Amino acid sequence: MSDVYAARRARLRDRYTAAGSAAALVSCPANVRYLAGGTPPGAVLLLGRDKDTDTLLCPRTAGDEPAGRLDGQLRISVLPTPSGDPAVAAAGLLPAGADSLAVEEHHLTVARHRAVGSVAPRARLMDLGGTVEQLRIVKDEEEIACLRIAAEIADQALGELLESILVGRTERHLALELERRLVDHGADGPAFPTTVATGPHAGRRGHRPSDRRVEEGDFLSVGLGADYHGYRCLIGRTFVIGTSPADWQIELYELVFAAQRAGREACVPSAGYREVDRAARQPLEAAGHGGGLAPRTGHGVGLEIDEDPQLAPAAMGKLDACVPVTVGPGVHLPGRGGVRIDDTLVVRPEADGGPELLTITTKELLAL
Amino acid sequence: MSDVYAARRARLRDRYTAAGSAAALVSCPANVRYLAGGTPPGAVLLLGRDKDTDTLLCPRTAGDEPAGRLDGQLRISVLPTPSGDPAVAAAGLLPAGADSLAVEEHHLTVARHRAVGSVAPRARLMDLGGTVEQLRIVKDEEEIACLRIAAEIADQALGELLESILVGRTERHLALELERRLVDHGADGPAFPTTVATGPHAGRRGHRPSDRRVEEGDFLSVGLGADYHGYRCLIGRTFVIGTSPADWQIELYELVFAAQRAGREACVPSAGYREVDRAARQPLEAAGHGGGLAPRTGHGVGLEIDEDPQLAPAAMGKLDACVPVTVGPGVHLPGRGGVRIDDTLVVRPEADGGPELLTITTKELLAL
Repeated sequence: MSDVYAARRARLRDRYTAAGSAAALVSCPANVRYLAGGTPPGAVLLLGRDKDTDTLLCPRTAGDEPAGRLDGQLRISVLPTPSGDPAVAAAGLLPAGADSLAVEEHHLTVARHRAVGSVAPRARLMDLGGTVEQLRIVKDEEEIACLRIAAEIADQALGELLESILVGRTERHLALELERRLVDHGADGPAFPTTVATGPHAGRRGHRPSDRRVEEGDFLSVGLGADYHGYRCLIGRTFVIGTSPADWQIELYELVFAAQRAGREACVPSAGYREVDRAARQPLEAAGHGGGLAPRTGHGVGLEIDEDPQLAPAAMGKLDACVPVTVGPGVHLPGRGGVRIDDTLVVRPEADGGPELLTITTKELLAL
Repeated sequence: MSDVYAARRARLRDRYTAAGSAAALVSCPANVRYLAGGTPPGAVLLLGRDKDTDTLLCPRTAGDEPAGRLDGQLRISVLPTPSGDPAVAAAGLLPAGADSLAVEEHHLTVARHRAVGSVAPRARLMDLGGTVEQLRIVKDEEEIACLRIAAEIADQALGELLESILVGRTERHLALELERRLVDHGADGPAFPTTVATGPHAGRRGHRPSDRRVEEGDFLSVGLGADYHGYRCLIGRTFVIGTSPADWQIELYELVFAAQRAGREACVPSAGYREVDRAARQPLEAAGHGGGLAPRTGHGVGLEIDEDPQLAPAAMGKLDACVPVTVGPGVHLPGRGGVRIDDTLVVRPEADGGPELLTITTKELLAL
């Protein structure tokens, strides 16, 4: 496994040296984990011209443990003082010859950037930008295997919830039970705060579980995901409570279901990000729901629950094979509720059977 | 309640105008919540020379809800486009006359700072630094009331756990049960990831709950806290499992207990931060445990679970009345386990009876 991380660092080294930088300082935790195999809290990674000098710098915080298993090939350096900033210490390790250092300007604060520069006054600070994030978009099969397990865990947790009594229970308790079940089934934790939305809340994006109790006739929408070895998936489903869904519920559900299927089917290699968004968005706009739609209908997942690509109307770029994305359009009718259906899938060529669906819980409208 | 937020903004306005800045852009979420009463995700607060122009700028993210209740006196502006950065939009709202803007350089990334500057090329960007964090250190009685309730909730959740069977259950499940009970008792959520550490893990700072099961003879250390209306407390306790603690367990417990009590008793107005740290640290060092000690023995709490002041050997500054802090020394013996005892208390003058202990769960060594 170590070789995987060394190979990732080599790909990054090619990028920043080609851009004219002698060294790179990686500070985004997910990027550090991607390149080092683990992230002790606050650790940063310093890469030079040559792999033998790659160093992971960790703050001195007695007792904290790294997430993930660190690459044994990496040099590890723990700061001598508790208050030190590993990014600043990294600048101090730059070889005398190094005249430039690429940093993640989208992550380093102005204050840290200044401190880094003051320690390495002769090194020109350049912007590494989203180089590591770009490397992370296409996953290898080991990463996809982690996402597959994460999705299985989420399916299991959701499936068990559906077998339990729901009426009368609060959104908060259902969310907490789902998170407990995720851990029961081997998740390192929830991939993001679980959302449970009932009745008028149903279908709201990012709804925070409240004390509202599930009632007969409610729409119930649930969004959850598992973190398995750092890889995070997402599943969203909407159900109706009670035996007889209302006509408007059935119509709205069928509409969102059709839009979500259209989005999934558009996830093929070389499809434009905006084409996938368009496929899922157009049916909802055509039905007159264009106004309240979320700014995007899906996004990449991996070491972060929300990473590139963005499936949105103005997004540039095309899908590649082995890119895991979510497809989750939703409609919320203020005061009435709504529907969200969200899957995590992996883009695969038609020859391999097309998109690989990771979250397999049924998308039939279940009346619970 | 609105007047409270207006008064806080007025205090901040005095600071940045005195420092020669015409306007201030607050982007740290906890600072925005402190000044605006709530924080829609990603929102920033723009303050000018005059309170009538104070504006909260929110990103356009359909469905997201603010945390807390927004101050009705504030002007609210939602960005027209989903991809926009509220900090950049705020710079665009600067009155033509404004020649300077103070920003939080410890929070704004280099990339955002550059974007803000490019929108307001005629405004000199200054550093607001930790001005709002400093205003937040001394709490008013309404804030302390929220912390008091948060502490009661944590005490209740912990008390219920102690009545249940512990042997054979995993750290993860105990942690999840504690978090469920926090919510049962009215918490908006856990104040931080609950830690449960058994046997050799016990007493480790920041230990991530694992699948290790509680065994007879274990030390069991627990750290949890409630978030109540945004205010976060912390309690840490250590117990022994089984009827007869070993001598080394009793000795170590009594040592940490004495150190923690010394730290609590040192929390009086005008006591130096480092004096409090010293009081809790010295007994542990004297007993030969100096090596593995955490870099600090306590810290402030409030809208963040970890805020100023820092109770550490090199910390500058003195405690004021109405400053809530944690006091939580701990000792971890590699391979054997250890003890942590952590309380949240409010600094009060001797005349008012001295430190007000918020977390009141017993600190006797309980054998469970």
